[in-house]
Amino acid sequence: MIKAWAVSAPKEKLVPYEYDPGELGPEEVEIAVEHCGICHSDLSMMHNEWGISSYPVVPGHEVIGKITNMGPLAKGLSVGQRVGVGWMAGSCMHCNPCIGGDQNLCPTGEGTIVGRHGGFADRVRVQWPWAIPLPAGLDPAEAGPLMCGGVTVYTPFEQFEIMSRDRVGVVGIGGLGHLAVKFANAWGCEVTAFTSTDSKADEARAFGAHNVVNSRDDAALASVANSLDLLIVTVNVPLNWRAMINTLGPKGRLHVVGAVLKPIPVIAMELIMQQRSVSGSPNGSPITMRNMVDFAARHNVLPKTEHFPIAKVNEAMAHLEAGKARYRIVLDM
Amino acid sequence: MIKAWAVSAPKEKLVPYEYDPGELGPEEVEIAVEHCGICHSDLSMMHNEWGISSYPVVPGHEVIGKITNMGPLAKGLSVGQRVGVGWMAGSCMHCNPCIGGDQNLCPTGEGTIVGRHGGFADRVRVQWPWAIPLPAGLDPAEAGPLMCGGVTVYTPFEQFEIMSRDRVGVVGIGGLGHLAVKFANAWGCEVTAFTSTDSKADEARAFGAHNVVNSRDDAALASVANSLDLLIVTVNVPLNWRAMINTLGPKGRLHVVGAVLKPIPVIAMELIMQQRSVSGSPNGSPITMRNMVDFAARHNVLPKTEHFPIAKVNEAMAHLEAGKARYRIVLDM
Repeated sequence: MIKAWAVSAPKEKLVPYEYDPGELGPEEVEIAVEHCGICHSDLSMMHNEWGISSYPVVPGHEVIGKITNMGPLAKGLSVGQRVGVGWMAGSCMHCNPCIGGDQNLCPTGEGTIVGRHGGFADRVRVQWPWAIPLPAGLDPAEAGPLMCGGVTVYTPFEQFEIMSRDRVGVVGIGGLGHLAVKFANAWGCEVTAFTSTDSKADEARAFGAHNVVNSRDDAALASVANSLDLLIVTVNVPLNWRAMINTLGPKGRLHVVGAVLKPIPVIAMELIMQQRSVSGSPNGSPITMRNMVDFAARHNVLPKTEHFPIAKVNEAMAHLEAGKARYRIVLDM
Repeated sequence: MIKAWAVSAPKEKLVPYEYDPGELGPEEVEIAVEHCGICHSDLSMMHNEWGISSYPVVPGHEVIGKITNMGPLAKGLSVGQRVGVGWMAGSCMHCNPCIGGDQNLCPTGEGTIVGRHGGFADRVRVQWPWAIPLPAGLDPAEAGPLMCGGVTVYTPFEQFEIMSRDRVGVVGIGGLGHLAVKFANAWGCEVTAFTSTDSKADEARAFGAHNVVNSRDDAALASVANSLDLLIVTVNVPLNWRAMINTLGPKGRLHVVGAVLKPIPVIAMELIMQQRSVSGSPNGSPITMRNMVDFAARHNVLPKTEHFPIAKVNEAMAHLEAGKARYRIVLDM
């Protein structure tokens, strides 16, 4: 039996929950969870905000732990090895995106907490490609949030071949945003942080931002117009999109990783005149996750965390829901 | 004196107009116009639709002609040489986009008919980089529309490194769109034409489309969902944008070259889940124009044209304004 924490309906508290995971799948590995980050999408799944939750929901998809058991077809891993797990726990491995190395775009990919049970537990199971070996130099107590939040903001650097001389902006200095600032700085870029919270300015600089701009101040936005090569939007609230797009220089790209629900109004001429792009991407592929943890270890990119013991998981969730997390919460098992 | 055709106010007819162009600028070349295509933006400028017209307006920015005179600093050209001229007639040559070869993105670039007099005339003047040598294999009577309409739809193939195995869609089978279909086919791509005019289906196939889809038929759009790598939108009217974006496969790009005025509503999750992009670009740089005419000559990419003598220019404009042009009008001087 796996000992987990689950909610049985939206707005319920997490309570201890035991389940029998059945026989280990041939391609699966089982991981003894040591630490698990909390991501805002854990809350969304607990409350069924996206209409895809099946109860009981065991949240948790920023797992660090050690492999305890491997199915006979699991490849390239070994029992006892420390790995990380992020948003995805399975992909078909044969569709075009999968065979091409973009398994995070698999149309039948499985989320770690979508129809499966996640990492708020003593053990969790994933298909082997989604268990990412952790390099020795990366602190396992801090690395969990890299597996979802981290790779989500790291992916555009690889996908769009961002160069170290590029100018990168990050909108929203929260769980994802502060990691984006750190990655952008480590990548060698000039980094501009956009936040609506003035009190975060000094911390944004400490994370590696060279400039900080108030994202609700249109004059401040205008002062950085036509300057950015990449603007990573990590928030899920509407912005002054026109001003945001106009921060982009020639061939610049506004890239959303936050699930903004209201459509983004894009003025064609403002794309056309400067050959700008607007795009988005989800989490990251296994190779990107492998590259990301190596890069993070080499450049010491780690989240700023607050730790809670798993027994205080409901306090941790309340802390997150109140917008007080600075900047990512990690549960210790 | 240059003998031209001009309008003196919005909605006026074109009338003969002579002007003294003054001394030739040191970086300019003067071209004796042989043929000049008509682009929809000539109409927009005649009617001051964009608020940037200064009257009298001499339209014409798809010029083919021979150089008759060169300023002392004009480079790489010779008197008597046949060249083409498109939307742009000048750029600063020292800003970052200019020095980087993206002169079409120069913030102080000059349009051939914006504050200057265009090619509905016996002569026209441009800064030398914007006089594009015509390769011998390209029919000068037909090549004019390549210089604006052609390079506008050719540019994304170079800028986004489209590969011959890619699947390319083209929305709108008109002046730009029929050239986009021809370029996409010559590029080696699988080509899907989207048109709201059923009577254009056979012609779209003749231009090189492998599939034709009615752009107003949501079921037809759904039938090609998740399939395209690049979708070039040449129309300037609102579309079912959601369905259009959903024709894109993983990492697909919807690229607008038509000046759609109403904002395009982009749903973030539909970009995120498949790592899609929405972008735009204007005309093309000199190197792209040079590459484009070479490619067009080698692959025999030419517009389907209707010819009018310059004396019948008002009939030609009325034909265009009525939406009857099939597919590009060329004036013969």
